[in-house]
Amino acid sequence: MHALSPQESAGNPPSEKLLVVKIGGQVIDEASALDHFLKAFAALEGKKILVHGGGKIATKTGERMGIVSRYVDGRRITDAATIDLVTMVYGGSVNKRLVAGLQALDCNAIGLTGADANSIPAKRRPVGEIDYGFVGDVALEGVDARPTQALLEAGMIPVFAPLTHDGRGQMLNTNADTIAAALAVALSAHYSVRLIYCFDKKGVLRDKSREEDVVAAMNRESYRQLLDAHALSDGILPKLDNAFQAIESGVDEVLIGRADDLEQNAGEAPTGTLIHR
Amino acid sequence: MHALSPQESAGNPPSEKLLVVKIGGQVIDEASALDHFLKAFAALEGKKILVHGGGKIATKTGERMGIVSRYVDGRRITDAATIDLVTMVYGGSVNKRLVAGLQALDCNAIGLTGADANSIPAKRRPVGEIDYGFVGDVALEGVDARPTQALLEAGMIPVFAPLTHDGRGQMLNTNADTIAAALAVALSAHYSVRLIYCFDKKGVLRDKSREEDVVAAMNRESYRQLLDAHALSDGILPKLDNAFQAIESGVDEVLIGRADDLEQNAGEAPTGTLIHR
Repeated sequence: MHALSPQESAGNPPSEKLLVVKIGGQVIDEASALDHFLKAFAALEGKKILVHGGGKIATKTGERMGIVSRYVDGRRITDAATIDLVTMVYGGSVNKRLVAGLQALDCNAIGLTGADANSIPAKRRPVGEIDYGFVGDVALEGVDARPTQALLEAGMIPVFAPLTHDGRGQMLNTNADTIAAALAVALSAHYSVRLIYCFDKKGVLRDKSREEDVVAAMNRESYRQLLDAHALSDGILPKLDNAFQAIESGVDEVLIGRADDLEQNAGEAPTGTLIHR
Repeated sequence: MHALSPQESAGNPPSEKLLVVKIGGQVIDEASALDHFLKAFAALEGKKILVHGGGKIATKTGERMGIVSRYVDGRRITDAATIDLVTMVYGGSVNKRLVAGLQALDCNAIGLTGADANSIPAKRRPVGEIDYGFVGDVALEGVDARPTQALLEAGMIPVFAPLTHDGRGQMLNTNADTIAAALAVALSAHYSVRLIYCFDKKGVLRDKSREEDVVAAMNRESYRQLLDAHALSDGILPKLDNAFQAIESGVDEVLIGRADDLEQNAGEAPTGTLIHR
């Protein structure tokens, strides 16, 4: 499927760029934000992957069907009715809205869940104090790059829903940030990967009350300094931990910024926070 | 994506076999029938494609959401709520149940709608005396083989939901028989294609009261003779017309038979009706 380039076979890092872009529910829920985002994504040159979250439509659809979302400690419990619901909504409604919207912009999108082509196998989360139900955990280095790479090399743009499978016929609800990171790590063996996490802030803020005070770049060393100075808000820490894990597993760069700023954040002068080695 | 084989470049018919199998709602609605079918499909050797219909789950899900199916002259009208419903149910629930089920059987399924990789573009049906709503018509020779062929050549098994798109962002509800025929025709330029329509009879019956009296083989000439003798039931005629159109557009063989008999019907001694040139 993939012929080794002279660089790869010589053990040098791959040079062709790949963007892995993750958007959350807030982009999907708002028609004008989604429209703006899809145009920016479609216009990005070169190889790219989109990973999307769920959005409120699952909860709304569930309410119409009489399925009540249950939460424990703020985390949704994915019971049998809920996994069927999110498979339908994330894998059907949301994924196909994005795919058809991108196709209308001449972007050759192909929608996938982790079950499709076995692109993201997962393990059902073990039952501890809480039984999260049909939730899939993906190991950061547990993804086989080949199926996704075959699509990229055929000129397709993979669009992933936040769903995986257990390999035994069961779909599993899976965090979109984790899927994006695992794909970025797997594909970093073949491409120079920038993983872009879109969220609601312009970037990592030095002070959450000052929206414009963005940390422009960060490596492990400067991250430690900011941590020591207690300069970062708690909410961003799990995202940063994930980002550094991805970097240490082979991803070249992680960019954290606004969905609205995708064009700049995919380029040489990002407005968000660039995390690097 | 596809290097011409010596045969193809010499203008000879392609020799590698491809099975295009279409199943209807009755297989999907019944767990034990589906289980049996998936095992048989997974066990088929060589290149293959599955096209599935909808099943009753869309109507049931619609009822739970307060969406009432409207019919005119026995044909479902796909209004805005209904296209959203079937995109969710056919593209999400049904498609992913089949994909995850096949993956559990080591069959490398990848689920698609016609929007994905622009594999099946369609035109919204023009409004005549009846406005069918968001229904897509696919021209028998209107499908580009390349996206589906790229997946097949990458070792994937495409699984198609009965959905297409208009290329401008709108999903469309589309007859699964038509999708199967259009795919079979497009891919017949590259493979020797047998198109298998699974339905509820063993094959084309000479007399609908005698379930075992199956017409074993049929070409255009013997079809005319059976028509002249008024030996065929009306219900089968549109299926046969479609079958002969596919044959005349390049498909090698069309097989009409039971989902339960897939193993035999994919082989050299089918129990259903084999339609050939």
